[in-house]
Amino acid sequence: MIPHADEAITRDDKSLILAYDHGLEHGPVDFEPNPATADPDRVFELATHDAVTAVAVQKGIAEGYYPSYEDDVTLLAKLNGTSNLWMGEPNSSVNWTVENAAEVGADAIGFTVYGGSNHEIEMVEEFREAQEAAREHDLGVVMWSYPRGQGLKNATTPDTIAYSTRLGLELGADITKVKYPGSPEAMNHAVTMAGNSKVVMSGGSKTDDQDFLATVRNAMDAGANGLAVGRNVFQRDNPEQILDGLEAVIFEEASVKDALDVMGSEPTNPAALE
Amino acid sequence: MIPHADEAITRDDKSLILAYDHGLEHGPVDFEPNPATADPDRVFELATHDAVTAVAVQKGIAEGYYPSYEDDVTLLAKLNGTSNLWMGEPNSSVNWTVENAAEVGADAIGFTVYGGSNHEIEMVEEFREAQEAAREHDLGVVMWSYPRGQGLKNATTPDTIAYSTRLGLELGADITKVKYPGSPEAMNHAVTMAGNSKVVMSGGSKTDDQDFLATVRNAMDAGANGLAVGRNVFQRDNPEQILDGLEAVIFEEASVKDALDVMGSEPTNPAALE
Amino acid sequence: MIPHADEAITRDDKSLILAYDHGLEHGPVDFEPNPATADPDRVFELATHDAVTAVAVQKGIAEGYYPSYEDDVTLLAKLNGTSNLWMGEPNSSVNWTVENAAEVGADAIGFTVYGGSNHEIEMVEEFREAQEAAREHDLGVVMWSYPRGQGLKNATTPDTIAYSTRLGLELGADITKVKYPGSPEAMNHAVTMAGNSKVVMSGGSKTDDQDFLATVRNAMDAGANGLAVGRNVFQRDNPEQILDGLEAVIFEEASVKDALDVMGSEPTNPAALE
Amino acid sequence: MIPHADEAITRDDKSLILAYDHGLEHGPVDFEPNPATADPDRVFELATHDAVTAVAVQKGIAEGYYPSYEDDVTLLAKLNGTSNLWMGEPNSSVNWTVENAAEVGADAIGFTVYGGSNHEIEMVEEFREAQEAAREHDLGVVMWSYPRGQGLKNATTPDTIAYSTRLGLELGADITKVKYPGSPEAMNHAVTMAGNSKVVMSGGSKTDDQDFLATVRNAMDAGANGLAVGRNVFQRDNPEQILDGLEAVIFEEASVKDALDVMGSEPTNPAALE
Amino acid sequence: MIPHADEAITRDDKSLILAYDHGLEHGPVDFEPNPATADPDRVFELATHDAVTAVAVQKGIAEGYYPSYEDDVTLLAKLNGTSNLWMGEPNSSVNWTVENAAEVGADAIGFTVYGGSNHEIEMVEEFREAQEAAREHDLGVVMWSYPRGQGLKNATTPDTIAYSTRLGLELGADITKVKYPGSPEAMNHAVTMAGNSKVVMSGGSKTDDQDFLATVRNAMDAGANGLAVGRNVFQRDNPEQILDGLEAVIFEEASVKDALDVMGSEPTNPAALE
Repeated sequence: MIPHADEAITRDDKSLILAYDHGLEHGPVDFEPNPATADPDRVFELATHDAVTAVAVQKGIAEGYYPSYEDDVTLLAKLNGTSNLWMGEPNSSVNWTVENAAEVGADAIGFTVYGGSNHEIEMVEEFREAQEAAREHDLGVVMWSYPRGQGLKNATTPDTIAYSTRLGLELGADITKVKYPGSPEAMNHAVTMAGNSKVVMSGGSKTDDQDFLATVRNAMDAGANGLAVGRNVFQRDNPEQILDGLEAVIFEEASVKDALDVMGSEPTNPAALE
Repeated sequence: MIPHADEAITRDDKSLILAYDHGLEHGPVDFEPNPATADPDRVFELATHDAVTAVAVQKGIAEGYYPSYEDDVTLLAKLNGTSNLWMGEPNSSVNWTVENAAEVGADAIGFTVYGGSNHEIEMVEEFREAQEAAREHDLGVVMWSYPRGQGLKNATTPDTIAYSTRLGLELGADITKVKYPGSPEAMNHAVTMAGNSKVVMSGGSKTDDQDFLATVRNAMDAGANGLAVGRNVFQRDNPEQILDGLEAVIFEEASVKDALDVMGSEPTNPAALE
Repeated sequence: MIPHADEAITRDDKSLILAYDHGLEHGPVDFEPNPATADPDRVFELATHDAVTAVAVQKGIAEGYYPSYEDDVTLLAKLNGTSNLWMGEPNSSVNWTVENAAEVGADAIGFTVYGGSNHEIEMVEEFREAQEAAREHDLGVVMWSYPRGQGLKNATTPDTIAYSTRLGLELGADITKVKYPGSPEAMNHAVTMAGNSKVVMSGGSKTDDQDFLATVRNAMDAGANGLAVGRNVFQRDNPEQILDGLEAVIFEEASVKDALDVMGSEPTNPAALE
Repeated sequence: MIPHADEAITRDDKSLILAYDHGLEHGPVDFEPNPATADPDRVFELATHDAVTAVAVQKGIAEGYYPSYEDDVTLLAKLNGTSNLWMGEPNSSVNWTVENAAEVGADAIGFTVYGGSNHEIEMVEEFREAQEAAREHDLGVVMWSYPRGQGLKNATTPDTIAYSTRLGLELGADITKVKYPGSPEAMNHAVTMAGNSKVVMSGGSKTDDQDFLATVRNAMDAGANGLAVGRNVFQRDNPEQILDGLEAVIFEEASVKDALDVMGSEPTNPAALE
Repeated sequence: MIPHADEAITRDDKSLILAYDHGLEHGPVDFEPNPATADPDRVFELATHDAVTAVAVQKGIAEGYYPSYEDDVTLLAKLNGTSNLWMGEPNSSVNWTVENAAEVGADAIGFTVYGGSNHEIEMVEEFREAQEAAREHDLGVVMWSYPRGQGLKNATTPDTIAYSTRLGLELGADITKVKYPGSPEAMNHAVTMAGNSKVVMSGGSKTDDQDFLATVRNAMDAGANGLAVGRNVFQRDNPEQILDGLEAVIFEEASVKDALDVMGSEPTNPAALE
């Protein structure tokens, strides 16, 4: 963590990252709920929404589309990632060098580390190389810290998530992206373990508006610095609408109720809003 | 995908690539149907046909023959490839560096990636290195995207081919070469998944004129940008003739019937032309 | 061992190193006995204690916190280390290069070598690279010499510890950190094997004040050059107090009794002080 | 194949290479039939024979002996090779870099590739590196193309040898050295597959004069460009004599009968000379 | 072998190398017969004896002690070596680069190669790198050529030792260190196989004065160029005395009887001196 290194992808120390690498990680099947978002143009347009502080894409998408949006969108270069055709122990190929990403116009880099994988050590060393190159190019560093592998049965326990954010701090991430550990207390513990580095929660699979906003509200209240989200936005019919709600929750300290109002969305569980 | 990076090997955004690396990939047995094409001179002469936008060969062939044809032929340097003496999990040695290919006069590079192989990650990282070097030398990038490996039983399903073109887009290919997925709908889906990068279909084994042209016509109608073809041209007695037909279909929007007329070839299934 | 290369992290040829990498090596669980020390600020404040000659941390902690303490604390950059999510044979990823550590302001580097591990050879070669880079940047070199692996059942026997310090000498460490081998005689043998390089004992798990100081006193009397300690300080309610005692024992040749007096701590076994 | 790149080691496009790396590949046992040739001086003296266009040796032999013969002998630096103490799958260590070989005075490099070995891919990539470095130093490139490995039971079938020469062409050798495939027709096929690159046959184990010359005569008539020979020369009592005969067959288009006359050697099978 | 490259560590083409890396290779247990020699100072003092042409040590010992002896002792930098905690197939980590060794003041390098090990190929390639770097720094090259591994039951047969010295010659050593093959005839054969490179015998475990000198005398008479010795000197109560004897045998062509006289040592088997 270098103070202010992540300024380009945060606002008031908070961040809403649109993560758009499902086409690589999961394949076209992930676009089926909302086929329009298979088109990167659609996603870059979404990324011009005020709520979005950065869009995270792989090299080819950045090469082909970012030039048209560079005035309005902040680029987070996701450097590694692997197709799910891969059958081996969790691992991720490095698809993009920091030097090339900086030329394409990135303001920050993103890098996945699978703690507990048999490839943990090589992934951490690849992270080191990217992290130090990012420092030379004054780019922020975001770690996707996802413990995963043969020895890990349940990677979203509070202890594992707290370890995940600590790995981000110790290894030199400015922001660490982790799954929501299930409770505000666990999230708060994970945030504490990150010291003065930031933590964003991962958006996960699509849930209903109220549930999603409530989880984000809890995470923010527990000290998280925002959200990195993909499918939970892209798989909706009206992705702009949920971005309105997320903006209220993340940047304007809105309650879930107020955020649903902003969205014009009906609560599915009104009792929980009391 | 960098806009216009592939200009040297396309015409009106379409491409017909003569792929001539069977001698390496399959060995001399592949020349038996038309022994004359074992001689690279014969292939470079074919590549002077107006229809051909580039010839894809390995380093040694380029060193020995390209100098005599450099005014009339565009060179696509196929950087990796492996003999079929290799018994291991699908993999491909890197036989040529971009720097050397640029010196020999290449206008673009070609690179095979076997998604799903146990060597997928190293192949993708080798692709990255070649792709970024190609950017520095202003060479176009063509990915042979062929999912293959222990875990993949049927690599030509629509889903797999759509994933193949998406890999090309995400990882930074300008053009992705894939097998024909069996139907125009599937081809169209694959083309959509490639975003603004291009897709060419692989020519495959020799089929009869009408069948071959019909498949290419379908692929073009489904949005493909052309064809990369080897055996399906070289194993014919009169390769120039099929190139005439392909030129009509790919660049002149000819119907299969008109293309057969151009070739002076009798339809084998006249009913299908109605 | 290069004469005086370790001057920045020693005083009168003695050293008390605060080692703070439990968050990486063991995870947040190690902070539970004294949660305040999960916060790196708390540790850097402790490191301003006169007794402390250096604080050993990983890159991310140094990036985020050292700038606020650089006038008062000496930085020992712990270059490698691995989470305990790792299930493989003992190994350690290299998380930090010497070049970057020097830029962050380190005065010395620390590096773990697991002699006897199936990864011994690669770890020793990584140590070589770090050691030689440290020489170019005039940084001291501390080896965490911890034999560990399938073939080693009991890594704290006198013979193993003596071999550990010899490895430090032969491979080029200025200071070698080893576990206490159980007796002053064994410690003395280990110190002898280190030739003119220095040996510090590892603090290990928390023990009571008297026992801990007695072990350190024995080690110093046997020729050790000090202590590298983490949990045995951080897991106490009053870490400053034990640092007072350690200062007396290590730098002022105090007896255990006198050191307990300095601390205002009651002996748990008064008879042993006679 | 780069035109004329092999000029230094050919004469009228033909080549007779003395290959002297048995000491490494097979060990001292190979010198037993003619112990004098264990002495490299004896071999370099032989290499001054007019028939010899190059001598192929490993680095240490070149360092120690070539300086005394550099005016009279052409050096082909054999870059890789392995002792037969090696028990693993066929592989060859790279014992010499092109840069060093060029400094020692080499005019060409030699490199073994075991197609079909589990190490094929790494060997081909090492060949690439050597081949491209050779291009930068204007050195000719000779590939020892020897399919060998678990999956290959019979590596001297016509198909395998034709594949071997094609690998040489495709991968960028100027000259490919292969075993004799058993018949002139098979040799001719292998030569055809090599395109405009050259093919030399491997001398193999010692056979009688007439048999040996007849095989070479057949190979030359089938289009081969010469011979690379070791034991079949060195294990004779009078190596100069067989070189006289080989010179006649390779460079002067002599019949076997005439070559035996030149040697003053009696035919063992006079009927075959009719 | 480059003529005169080893001048700094030979005298009249003969060499007596004190090899002092037991602390790394075998651990402190090797010093037990003569504990004083655990102290490198004691060994460097011995190395000032007229008989000694070089002392072979690892990096850390050289860093810490050589500066005090550089006017009187010649440094042979032993670049690789591994602790016997290592349980894997024979291998040796590279602990020291040539560049660093040259800065520390080395006049030659030493490198172990285990022919026949599953790591043979990587060790030979590491040797290549060191050997070529040594050439750039004008340092002599000594190979410890010790066939060892799963497939080798008896590594001291005459054939194996002859192969060992041939490996030294072919791969580019100036001097090859091998075990004594058991007879003068076998030693002579090994020396012959080394061509114009030099051979020194390894001193082995401690034997009585007469036996040891007789073996060295035999080796010298068989053409060896000297001795590299460690335990057989250091484990004696009076190491200077045996150095006197070795000086007589190696450099002054003394008989065993005369050498024992020089030493003031009684023959244990007077009959053998006749």
